Amino acid sequence: MSKYWSPILKNIKPYTPGEQPKDKKYIKLNTNENPYPPSPKVIKAIRKATDETLRLYPDPVCTELREAIASLYQVKENQVFVGNGSDELLAFAYLAFFEPAAKPVLFADVTYSFYPVYAALFKVNYQLIPTDDDFNIPPEGYYQENGGIVIANPNAPTGRSLSLESVKAILQHNRKCVVIIDEAYVDFGGQSAKGLINDYPNLLVIQTMSKSWALAGLRVGYAIGSAELIEGIIRIKDSINSYTLDRLALAGAAAAIKDNAYYIKIRKKIIRTRERLTASLVAKGFKVIPSQSNFIFISHPLCPGEEIFRQLREKSILVRHFNKPKINNFLRVTIGTDTEMDIFLEAISAIVTGY
Amino acid sequence: MSKYWSPILKNIKPYTPGEQPKDKKYIKLNTNENPYPPSPKVIKAIRKATDETLRLYPDPVCTELREAIASLYQVKENQVFVGNGSDELLAFAYLAFFEPAAKPVLFADVTYSFYPVYAALFKVNYQLIPTDDDFNIPPEGYYQENGGIVIANPNAPTGRSLSLESVKAILQHNRKCVVIIDEAYVDFGGQSAKGLINDYPNLLVIQTMSKSWALAGLRVGYAIGSAELIEGIIRIKDSINSYTLDRLALAGAAAAIKDNAYYIKIRKKIIRTRERLTASLVAKGFKVIPSQSNFIFISHPLCPGEEIFRQLREKSILVRHFNKPKINNFLRVTIGTDTEMDIFLEAISAIVTGY
Repeated sequence: MSKYWSPILKNIKPYTPGEQPKDKKYIKLNTNENPYPPSPKVIKAIRKATDETLRLYPDPVCTELREAIASLYQVKENQVFVGNGSDELLAFAYLAFFEPAAKPVLFADVTYSFYPVYAALFKVNYQLIPTDDDFNIPPEGYYQENGGIVIANPNAPTGRSLSLESVKAILQHNRKCVVIIDEAYVDFGGQSAKGLINDYPNLLVIQTMSKSWALAGLRVGYAIGSAELIEGIIRIKDSINSYTLDRLALAGAAAAIKDNAYYIKIRKKIIRTRERLTASLVAKGFKVIPSQSNFIFISHPLCPGEEIFRQLREKSILVRHFNKPKINNFLRVTIGTDTEMDIFLEAISAIVTGY
Repeated sequence: MSKYWSPILKNIKPYTPGEQPKDKKYIKLNTNENPYPPSPKVIKAIRKATDETLRLYPDPVCTELREAIASLYQVKENQVFVGNGSDELLAFAYLAFFEPAAKPVLFADVTYSFYPVYAALFKVNYQLIPTDDDFNIPPEGYYQENGGIVIANPNAPTGRSLSLESVKAILQHNRKCVVIIDEAYVDFGGQSAKGLINDYPNLLVIQTMSKSWALAGLRVGYAIGSAELIEGIIRIKDSINSYTLDRLALAGAAAAIKDNAYYIKIRKKIIRTRERLTASLVAKGFKVIPSQSNFIFISHPLCPGEEIFRQLREKSILVRHFNKPKINNFLRVTIGTDTEMDIFLEAISAIVTGY
């Protein structure tokens, strides 16, 4: 704390990303990265863009990348925004669409822990809508007066997803404020709301390229919504940083989007591994929340989550444990390669055996 | 405008970066990019980092790059922050250190036009301190109650610089609030205040790698200040986006910093070209504000700035014209290569001849 800090700064509690330890080699199942490399075409496109044009600013309106995304999802270029990861997009969207000190924005009590951080930073009120005992998000919870809605679908850290019908029901009850559907994990089996943007001008769908596009290291996210919402986010971006995506990220991300076939393949592999792992864990007595994402959320009836976390770490396996109400007995485990999952399964079985 | 926009969004006027036209080939002297390529070591480092590790998040604390910068300027790593260009850093610094709706932040009436944009976005009051008729910044203007100070040194778009003595005088009169010195252009002949950070815990010096480091396309900026200020900016960053620098930008920027000798060389070339161009323009009757940056700010006694701008554009030469009080007769011209400057000189001479 410093006397030079603004009152806002003194009051915020920043988000804590999953640890990136450097002390030894771990099997990293703690930050939901993709275990497979990006498309070789991405590597090629970036190498090609790595030349003396780096002395020049990137395209501030990101035309090539936005066109590629628009073409993939059959929307218009002015219905697409691209930014430095979906976290930046969420921050911009809060500034663009949520009014400080007004009616509360609604989000789940168990969800991505960055949502309340933005609210504190931008002085936006919020109200937590409880998930049920099995971490389902009840649509009816969102049928009330609000200043906006943010739903992660599939949800994090639970992996639970909402059906498109439920998302539609929420949209039908909410015409006045912006509804953000954060689809960071949708490509692993969820149902996307992207197809609804022409029916609901207040719907903003946010995606990241860090998970299903295997590009966490490149920092790219995109948002899809009505032209009026997208124009609003662009105006916020242009009031903070005219160019948030560098030339290499733009080139690599566009190449990825254009090689969708490769990504469909690796996502299928991850889904297969998840289903196999889930079955094995259930057979060993674990509770596994049904997941449509690239991670699973698990607990053991006898062995506490924190204890499993600690012992896995000793065995050089990193998973994520959240010391929070309702979920402190659970672990979030990223789906790795089949080999990594075999090692994980053997390790966790040894830990809980005899407990 | 949209009914879904927040009150803040409805009221802001975003910053307009210099145009990046795609209609034909221009000599681009409008965005203060470096005419020389980045160090070959930067290209090599980026190509080396372009591999399958792009599937993994970057280092959120940017250790290697911060260590390189700390070593170059003989400060500690916890006195260095790195971000996605100096614009992002400025935005974070406003949030971190300036209190909304409180005492005004002071900056010059003629300066970087992004400063009032941040103020509007974050509801920070500000007061413009007039530059004199020759665009000098009078230190005494900053000896008054305030909520913070932002000074571009050298100033943009004028190129005028303040002596280190004047910066010190301003700091001595301002112990209570944060003083930001924006040194985007300092490497072209200005005096840096970086050496003062241990004496003034409220001093934040901001630098960009877009100009003197020839890396506008990579989006990297850094800030140097006391550990308490740097910790504050990190907390803001971690409340918006945990990773604003991708793996390639981190690798390229670190390689640049470690090859300082290359950059000293290209900066000297730019300074030589600037001095030669200035002498030629003065000889042709232009007023040229003495510049310590990689651009010059010029006017002609007879031919209006906007007219010269228009005619240069027709000749495929882009410069920057600001349609604003006090400076609307001036043009900001980036220093290019000697060849580009010869073409520019011939073109502008033809335009004003006979006017």
